[in-house]
Amino acid sequence: MKLHGILPACVTPFIDGRADAAAMQENIARWLETGVHGFVIFGSTGEFPYLEDEERGTILAAARAAIPEDKIMLAGCGAESTERTLRYLREAAAHGVQAALVVTPVYYTRGNTEAQRRYYLDLAEASPIPILIYNVPAFTAYELPVELVLELAQHPNIAGIKDSSNYGRRAVIEVAEGPEDFAVFSGNPNYVFPALAMGAAGSITAFANIIPELMVAIYRAVQAGDMATAARVQVAVSRLHWEIGPLGSPALKAILEHRGFRPGRPRRPLLPLSPDERARAVAAWERAMQAVG
Amino acid sequence: MKLHGILPACVTPFIDGRADAAAMQENIARWLETGVHGFVIFGSTGEFPYLEDEERGTILAAARAAIPEDKIMLAGCGAESTERTLRYLREAAAHGVQAALVVTPVYYTRGNTEAQRRYYLDLAEASPIPILIYNVPAFTAYELPVELVLELAQHPNIAGIKDSSNYGRRAVIEVAEGPEDFAVFSGNPNYVFPALAMGAAGSITAFANIIPELMVAIYRAVQAGDMATAARVQVAVSRLHWEIGPLGSPALKAILEHRGFRPGRPRRPLLPLSPDERARAVAAWERAMQAVG
Amino acid sequence: MKLHGILPACVTPFIDGRADAAAMQENIARWLETGVHGFVIFGSTGEFPYLEDEERGTILAAARAAIPEDKIMLAGCGAESTERTLRYLREAAAHGVQAALVVTPVYYTRGNTEAQRRYYLDLAEASPIPILIYNVPAFTAYELPVELVLELAQHPNIAGIKDSSNYGRRAVIEVAEGPEDFAVFSGNPNYVFPALAMGAAGSITAFANIIPELMVAIYRAVQAGDMATAARVQVAVSRLHWEIGPLGSPALKAILEHRGFRPGRPRRPLLPLSPDERARAVAAWERAMQAVG
Amino acid sequence: MKLHGILPACVTPFIDGRADAAAMQENIARWLETGVHGFVIFGSTGEFPYLEDEERGTILAAARAAIPEDKIMLAGCGAESTERTLRYLREAAAHGVQAALVVTPVYYTRGNTEAQRRYYLDLAEASPIPILIYNVPAFTAYELPVELVLELAQHPNIAGIKDSSNYGRRAVIEVAEGPEDFAVFSGNPNYVFPALAMGAAGSITAFANIIPELMVAIYRAVQAGDMATAARVQVAVSRLHWEIGPLGSPALKAILEHRGFRPGRPRRPLLPLSPDERARAVAAWERAMQAVG
Repeated sequence: MKLHGILPACVTPFIDGRADAAAMQENIARWLETGVHGFVIFGSTGEFPYLEDEERGTILAAARAAIPEDKIMLAGCGAESTERTLRYLREAAAHGVQAALVVTPVYYTRGNTEAQRRYYLDLAEASPIPILIYNVPAFTAYELPVELVLELAQHPNIAGIKDSSNYGRRAVIEVAEGPEDFAVFSGNPNYVFPALAMGAAGSITAFANIIPELMVAIYRAVQAGDMATAARVQVAVSRLHWEIGPLGSPALKAILEHRGFRPGRPRRPLLPLSPDERARAVAAWERAMQAVG
Repeated sequence: MKLHGILPACVTPFIDGRADAAAMQENIARWLETGVHGFVIFGSTGEFPYLEDEERGTILAAARAAIPEDKIMLAGCGAESTERTLRYLREAAAHGVQAALVVTPVYYTRGNTEAQRRYYLDLAEASPIPILIYNVPAFTAYELPVELVLELAQHPNIAGIKDSSNYGRRAVIEVAEGPEDFAVFSGNPNYVFPALAMGAAGSITAFANIIPELMVAIYRAVQAGDMATAARVQVAVSRLHWEIGPLGSPALKAILEHRGFRPGRPRRPLLPLSPDERARAVAAWERAMQAVG
Repeated sequence: MKLHGILPACVTPFIDGRADAAAMQENIARWLETGVHGFVIFGSTGEFPYLEDEERGTILAAARAAIPEDKIMLAGCGAESTERTLRYLREAAAHGVQAALVVTPVYYTRGNTEAQRRYYLDLAEASPIPILIYNVPAFTAYELPVELVLELAQHPNIAGIKDSSNYGRRAVIEVAEGPEDFAVFSGNPNYVFPALAMGAAGSITAFANIIPELMVAIYRAVQAGDMATAARVQVAVSRLHWEIGPLGSPALKAILEHRGFRPGRPRRPLLPLSPDERARAVAAWERAMQAVG
Repeated sequence: MKLHGILPACVTPFIDGRADAAAMQENIARWLETGVHGFVIFGSTGEFPYLEDEERGTILAAARAAIPEDKIMLAGCGAESTERTLRYLREAAAHGVQAALVVTPVYYTRGNTEAQRRYYLDLAEASPIPILIYNVPAFTAYELPVELVLELAQHPNIAGIKDSSNYGRRAVIEVAEGPEDFAVFSGNPNYVFPALAMGAAGSITAFANIIPELMVAIYRAVQAGDMATAARVQVAVSRLHWEIGPLGSPALKAILEHRGFRPGRPRRPLLPLSPDERARAVAAWERAMQAVG
């Protein structure tokens, strides 16, 4: 199945302090009603660095059971050491995950291009499933160089990238200069329409948790050549990001709860929103949703 | 005349070590053949921090004489002190400049929001011509906060912004949240199509010196609703920027010389391109120009 | 036992791909001959983000057995989630560790002062052993604000800080404005002499792995009021850091091997030094060691 | 006369909106009573980017007349273009200035090592007086690489550096690896004692405007081998910097006025302190001055 479309980077529901498989399945069922093309489990929005190993298997199994075969299922498998990432890749493959998101490791390898190259090539050689690079400077505090992305893109087991850079240019270059079948996903909610208009395969964002309808509307409008609609909805998405982006993933959980999903609470040290923040986030979300009538 | 369209931030020709008025006029005549909507004199590409005061008047007079009345003429007037900027604003007004670009001062006021606010409000009160804020972190190493931009946008004598941020989101928010008549110009060559598609007034870029035809093509395509063409040309622009952006304005002078313009040489300490760099820059430019047949 | 002195942040020996308890004990025995005042297990130099949970217990038990009762034993216990850090703190206490280093979490909480405050206060309340804050921007890409450090320093279970900031001023302020018994350890090898001269309790550094003799010499000289000697040795330390700092912890393992320790190899994706780099690192180390005759 | 000692980077008095030569002379007379070894005119504290060309000559002439022949007189001559810097260098020489501080240009050459190299070498070849490099990332937002500093230090007309980096290591390396007669001045008020203890020639700081007595005390203590006193006074200096550093040079003018100097007001867009800030700054200064009894 070709990697494409709108894929929410799903929140992981922590309820009573534990990753809750049943809530995960309920949420997936709700997202399926919005027309999304698949799901990413254990993205940054999924609080993956806070998960215990035993929770990973539970959630993967639950998600796999809830996601129809004709929908895409990706999982974040990045860890700091090559060995642990490989362990997660094998586990994901065993659970029927189609491809893996591998975030750039953060602690020692920031700015170390040679270590980055070896990391991804070692994984690509050994992984039972294809890999998507995951570049997310908001969390890692660095950018994988585009030159290295283009080099890694030549490996047959490196299938694409989720690029959450603020620099929209990156996605354009990765599409234009990468191999034909290298799947570029915009991870920046402000760049979904431009990226799709210029040839990106799709978008994987935190925001697709709370506004999947808007993201799908942008995707469909671009597919249909109706760029004016795509641009109009993008403005609504960008305004929402402007208003609640700084509140982080706790705002997504608050809005999902308001929508009737079961997101649970963020895990410590992330803090839930205050009542005021929550009211503000919900109001901003309601305004944004009017863009799809 | 409404502020809009494709406005090259013109190079200042230094020939035999001096700012050359005749060459400036010849270049303007050449750019006029490409369909641009006007000109910005003394933008960053104009090496404005290297100009002596007496050169400013010479160039402004020459440019004014060469620019038809139905074309827009802006001039960069930013300096470090409020007093000197005011002097430049009055001089620009006396030369018939329509509005002024005022870059955020760099040395002491980086990160000092209150000083920035006072700076722009003092100027807006005293300037004989409207002001456009000029946000260009590549040179100033900071971003004027969008909140402050939106606040300043309420002043009747602050007419718009040239936003050269890498963060495309800024332009979207400035368009969507600013006053109706606040003119947002994308200064980032990678964001021309998206910005125009989402409501920006136009684009002021260094790259419009060397590829005015491509910039005008994007503008016209968006105006005509032909977004597919706009997106296609944008990809060519972004690829060119990817290839020669790091070479800076000396690359623009090299390409302009190749095109038959009279750009002269960069002023010291800027260095002209090496022959190898020059050949590479010209080849990249030729590839990009094929996007407009 | 008062927290003080020169404490190497020990490398974790990975031999045949596994954390090797016997090598750890041999290394500790070697360091004990140099006059160090104690040890930090699982500091950044210990590649703690690459350790599997089962390896932590093995190494802690081995280190505890090898470290005499009259020497200080600290352990790094920081993880991303509050819950996991608490688990590591309890495990460290059970192994007889005196106090814990808790690095600022990196992924979601960079720049989120409120989450940082809650994180450290929650830990301080629940931890069976005292906590030292660990500020290390080279790896975390942010600085815990000094104001927050001073606020946290008031908690009876927050005993000190290892401050590896490049900004030496931080350590001075933390000593001067913190509580009397708040133990400030310089983590920056370039600031050991100044920090000690201005009242720091000691120094915890990567470099104390390879030049414990120099670090102890600085400490003893400052204690004896012989600042000229301390300054002279500091210059040698800073020159060494200038020469091999960019090579990272793999350089420390190479030099330790040269010294006859058993450091093993860095774990992937960290790369061992090339033969050229290794020769250069050893030569620089030999020059530095001449400062102690 | 050998470049050494404590040199305040003098404020430029703006009184009734103009650079005031008589006030400059009065201030110099007051500073001379404190034991400083000389003066720097047109440092960053002198608001040099706000000066008009005609003011430069007036102030230089006044300062030259007020500074005894046995005191050092330096002047800041850096501008953006090589040509203008050369003009300022020649003017400074004509006024009897001993050597010039040349700040790294900020606008186009940030990060462009080759342009930096050519800039300083061109100046060194043509300047009638020796040059000191001036590295001040707080204002320029970049650091001249230490490797380039060491390379430039080989030129006979490049006599030293004022290094205002927050990274104290830089000064140590510049002292240790530079030529014997390369004069390193710490520009960071938090690093005066360590830099002097490790061989720096002296210190040029904004803070020597308001606490010349403390700076001279540190210098004399280090010269006398009384490092304990030097360290004690340094702590007072660092605490003061911690308290008022963020208020910038307007705080220096407020404190100088309190001391009975004639500093005038900062030039726009710099803002004078509010009454509250002023009271806080003066109180912090009074506490610091107690370190010298």
